Amino acid sequence: MSGVSAQADRGIGPVEIVGAGLIGTSIALACRRAGIEVLLSDVAPEHLRTASGLGAGRAREDGDVARLVVVAVPPDHLGEAIRAALDAAGPETVVTDVGSVKSGPLAAVEGHPAVSRYVGSHPMAGSERSGPLAASASLFDGRPWAITPGGGTSPDAVHAVERLVEVCGAVPVRLSPSEHDRAVARTSHVPHLLAALVAGTLAGAPPQHLALSGQGVRDVTRVAAGDPGLYSQIIGANAIAVTNLLAELQQRLDLAAEAVAAGDRDGLASLLAHGVAGTRAIPGKHGGPLQAMATVWVSVPDHPGELARLFADAGESDVNIEDVRIDHDPGRPVGLVELDVAADRATALLDALESRGWDAHR
Amino acid sequence: MSGVSAQADRGIGPVEIVGAGLIGTSIALACRRAGIEVLLSDVAPEHLRTASGLGAGRAREDGDVARLVVVAVPPDHLGEAIRAALDAAGPETVVTDVGSVKSGPLAAVEGHPAVSRYVGSHPMAGSERSGPLAASASLFDGRPWAITPGGGTSPDAVHAVERLVEVCGAVPVRLSPSEHDRAVARTSHVPHLLAALVAGTLAGAPPQHLALSGQGVRDVTRVAAGDPGLYSQIIGANAIAVTNLLAELQQRLDLAAEAVAAGDRDGLASLLAHGVAGTRAIPGKHGGPLQAMATVWVSVPDHPGELARLFADAGESDVNIEDVRIDHDPGRPVGLVELDVAADRATALLDALESRGWDAHR
Repeated sequence: MSGVSAQADRGIGPVEIVGAGLIGTSIALACRRAGIEVLLSDVAPEHLRTASGLGAGRAREDGDVARLVVVAVPPDHLGEAIRAALDAAGPETVVTDVGSVKSGPLAAVEGHPAVSRYVGSHPMAGSERSGPLAASASLFDGRPWAITPGGGTSPDAVHAVERLVEVCGAVPVRLSPSEHDRAVARTSHVPHLLAALVAGTLAGAPPQHLALSGQGVRDVTRVAAGDPGLYSQIIGANAIAVTNLLAELQQRLDLAAEAVAAGDRDGLASLLAHGVAGTRAIPGKHGGPLQAMATVWVSVPDHPGELARLFADAGESDVNIEDVRIDHDPGRPVGLVELDVAADRATALLDALESRGWDAHR
Repeated sequence: MSGVSAQADRGIGPVEIVGAGLIGTSIALACRRAGIEVLLSDVAPEHLRTASGLGAGRAREDGDVARLVVVAVPPDHLGEAIRAALDAAGPETVVTDVGSVKSGPLAAVEGHPAVSRYVGSHPMAGSERSGPLAASASLFDGRPWAITPGGGTSPDAVHAVERLVEVCGAVPVRLSPSEHDRAVARTSHVPHLLAALVAGTLAGAPPQHLALSGQGVRDVTRVAAGDPGLYSQIIGANAIAVTNLLAELQQRLDLAAEAVAAGDRDGLASLLAHGVAGTRAIPGKHGGPLQAMATVWVSVPDHPGELARLFADAGESDVNIEDVRIDHDPGRPVGLVELDVAADRATALLDALESRGWDAHR
């Protein structure tokens, strides 16, 4: 199709950002970094001023025509804002949104005469902060970014959003809207909800019980610290996919509770083995299969400079460190640092660190 | 009591280790590091040879009398092994165990004439590896170590185990056996089980859905990679406390599922807010209250040496890094490193990194 290549040749600017919050302003900054003209709009004039002040673009004026409109408003306002953007758009303008659920917004524009120029998308990035001041052009670096065309979406629209994802340094993942919603129910919404339920069992527990908390419970509950107002909107907007998956979890939790109460070790081990299979299904770095990993623990004095010394020494070992965790200790001025490396490199790292005087073990 | 100070003056050696696996051999190595004589026993002669070869002590011989016996056998054999140790012990020998559940072993020695010289304990440390070859004298550095006296435990016995905990570099936390079991149900067993159930929902999911996995689901499910055989023993041995807590979770999961299905945003937000309160209840580093933290993200080329350069530059900023995570990216040779620092130091770190050419943001 000639339209596709023409679109590709022309680029995607000017890009209009509707909603200059964390995500919208970060996209604007990434576009500016690439030299693309950005038009900003927001119901809050102070957001507009802040985003403009950060160099994210200029306020949209009457008569401006964007080639790509990115709707980045809170979940509950998405459908309305996407319709309004399609109403106001020029005849070749593409409209996308960056909401965390995709079936609802598509349904909201069904039947719109310009529906073929709308394609939903969803960058898998965020921050515990919000607002334009928290924005950064590098927020999306290396993150997955779902693109979710509907049946009537034009290839030009998909291409424009693919180009936006590229400009933002993210990795495009194409899915249908309903597939996307089932995927994020599984990889984000249900894990968040269950983490919140586990965390809830800690609220009000005696402090001497919580003193036994290790890295495990901290990992399991970390995401549960997110804003309840925002996450109830996100999870609430994906009610069908989340409800279906929760029904599965309710059944399995009942089975687990029965197995524990009945002393059914085999039943319990089988549920746990299913979990092990799940952890192995999560893709590894660089999209490849998970490689066998090993952990090296190092005791590190807990003051500035020591981590630098550790990583300098680790760097000289020529072993690539795939992941790092610092364990929290309840009463000592020493941190336990966990270094995850390829299993066949763990001994080399351990030897290198011990030879440089580190207290390390596998 | 003169016995306490006499015990303190005399120290705790010789220490006998029953079960030269990961935990037992690590305790033995820590004792040897402190110059304490160690006697080893294990049903597997190859474990004994390996542990001795690592310098963890010498095989126990007839006529040897230990001052402290540490039973470190698998959960299902604890009661029997502790009874046997008390049967064989000298008149002043103290016996402890390091099992992950504490009511069961105490019940198993109830009525034993030497029960006052038994006190349970539980170091909160481990590894995904097992066996004496994985052992290390520093395995317990800075970790909580529960000490769980029963009603009839002598102060001398408690004191001897406190001394062992000190020798191992761990932090003693005193709890009753039933308190301990409720505590680990909450901080370890139930989080593990729920993480396994969440991970189970990923098993068999389409790869393009799992491509949207972010750091959140990886954190939630990380512990679920543990050995199902071992964890079914551990969780199964704490059936009452785990069952009680699972009943609470089943109710809350039902409420959450109803709230999502019914579009009850306030109900959902309230459950999520309870989770936020729980994450704040986990003690911070150094036993103090959690300080306000902020995250700085940095894009780091994914090859050896770059982390060293990052931490060297961060170290020069004089900002203490409290936690580190490396995000996995599905398609790019760059890692996103998350640095957690005190909230009031984040700007200083960000400025320092940016001035040294790092692509960083909050």
